[in-house]
Amino acid sequence: MEKIKIAVVGLGNIGKAVCEAVNAAEDMELCGIVRRASAEGETLNEIKIVDDIKKFDKVNKVDVAILCGPSREVPGMAEKYLPMGINTVDSFDIHSEIWDLKTRLDGIAKANNACSIISTGMDPGADSIIRALFLALTPRGITYTNFGPGMSMGHTVAVKAIAGVKSALSMTIPAGAGTHNRMVYVEIEPGADFAAVAEKIKSDPYFVNDNTKVTLVDNVNDLIDMGHAANIVRKGVSGTAHNQLLEFTMKVNNPALTAQMMVSCARASMRRPPGCYTVVELPLIDLLPGGTEQIIRSLV
Amino acid sequence: MEKIKIAVVGLGNIGKAVCEAVNAAEDMELCGIVRRASAEGETLNEIKIVDDIKKFDKVNKVDVAILCGPSREVPGMAEKYLPMGINTVDSFDIHSEIWDLKTRLDGIAKANNACSIISTGMDPGADSIIRALFLALTPRGITYTNFGPGMSMGHTVAVKAIAGVKSALSMTIPAGAGTHNRMVYVEIEPGADFAAVAEKIKSDPYFVNDNTKVTLVDNVNDLIDMGHAANIVRKGVSGTAHNQLLEFTMKVNNPALTAQMMVSCARASMRRPPGCYTVVELPLIDLLPGGTEQIIRSLV
Repeated sequence: MEKIKIAVVGLGNIGKAVCEAVNAAEDMELCGIVRRASAEGETLNEIKIVDDIKKFDKVNKVDVAILCGPSREVPGMAEKYLPMGINTVDSFDIHSEIWDLKTRLDGIAKANNACSIISTGMDPGADSIIRALFLALTPRGITYTNFGPGMSMGHTVAVKAIAGVKSALSMTIPAGAGTHNRMVYVEIEPGADFAAVAEKIKSDPYFVNDNTKVTLVDNVNDLIDMGHAANIVRKGVSGTAHNQLLEFTMKVNNPALTAQMMVSCARASMRRPPGCYTVVELPLIDLLPGGTEQIIRSLV
Repeated sequence: MEKIKIAVVGLGNIGKAVCEAVNAAEDMELCGIVRRASAEGETLNEIKIVDDIKKFDKVNKVDVAILCGPSREVPGMAEKYLPMGINTVDSFDIHSEIWDLKTRLDGIAKANNACSIISTGMDPGADSIIRALFLALTPRGITYTNFGPGMSMGHTVAVKAIAGVKSALSMTIPAGAGTHNRMVYVEIEPGADFAAVAEKIKSDPYFVNDNTKVTLVDNVNDLIDMGHAANIVRKGVSGTAHNQLLEFTMKVNNPALTAQMMVSCARASMRRPPGCYTVVELPLIDLLPGGTEQIIRSLV
């Protein structure tokens, strides 16, 4: 069987974890890593790093580019690779813009006989599939998605942007019914006023609506752990039966989970007709290695 | 928007719950109930009961027949309705025979421009989707499916077939790591020897491999509750990250959950190309009412 040829674009936490997940997948082959020009000529475990996907050694073209850049850069990356007929997978996580991204990439993908799977990972991604299943099982009711305890990348970046902050970590602490508290740990610049910094953090749009506690620490790095958790709870109605209780919990290494979901979706991209898909538009069997019969016999 | 026209075939616990779930779905219409000839002319909440689907009043034909008979009768039912161009949905739950049923119905469905969705409900069904997602998120590891506490239909029927048993209830009690204990409650016939009956139950193929306790009771009916539970646990590896912890739990009215899943799959049957599908072959979005944009915006 011919292996699926993967390029990893970007080499942060997620990019590195994607490389590991691709290497662990028997039906995939890591062709190379695409990174900024300054990294040109470097290698990662003998995998070549280039600044342009066309510089890979492989005679055959890349099947799927897994886009591991920040969400804001994802649309541009996808618009670069899809016209080359290369499938793309990303973890674009700006929930309010997912629909627009889908419609934007769908036409490009179809025009180039390629497939783009967007907004995979933890949430959107695995959590989206759970929310869809819960809704199918209980059409009426309320779903609560609770995150953490775990590091919030977005909130951490927001704190780091505040004047006087040298380094920061923002932890998301679940407070029930889809609400969250924020525990923020900061190192401050010499001469900065901690009380003033703490007030600025609490009044930042990222934090103003949440119960936020700011703590001064000597070394933020000592506190960082990539574990995260999600807990989705729904109490709903099936037909006329109330009090149907559904719950999903994952406690995971966050970059590894996100990366694995992206890699499984890369497989799915080889099995779907051209177009752009979110995870709830994919049959789950397409994410799994192996043949239909073996999967259905062992798992359904 | 034209409503999906549903026929319910069979009117046991599941059939009744399917009628309720169809009535609660705004995009569906219950055309009627098909039942054995002796029920002909009866009604259920003004819905006509007939012994032949062709006797329905509706001018337009039925879109989907939801098959609520015992698993053994499902293949024959599907082979009757699919050639009429009517989609079918069932909760066929003999795990070892699902693949064969799929291949058997796939050709018939395609030849008649119809769609058959098999083995929906709790397990197979909702649990199958969870197992597939867990495998996609952590390709290495062990999945345990734990059932109960709740009534096992199959085990209860097996006990009732034993000589000297007047009535019975077999409860499935989870014992961890996918193993189960059986708590069996029996009424016995006058003159029957309880100790002998209990021994026969424990040596029955349904029970011989499980820790089974048999209790004599005056009235089995007083003990029956249709609640059931499933708990799926997986500890696995994403890429090179071990100890990824995934868990799903549902505590539900079992017939209502099964029925709702069948009704959601009836909707999906209207959106899939002709053929026969298990639930892991369906995009979850197809199970939900409403348009793609609204679902993606609100749920992904």
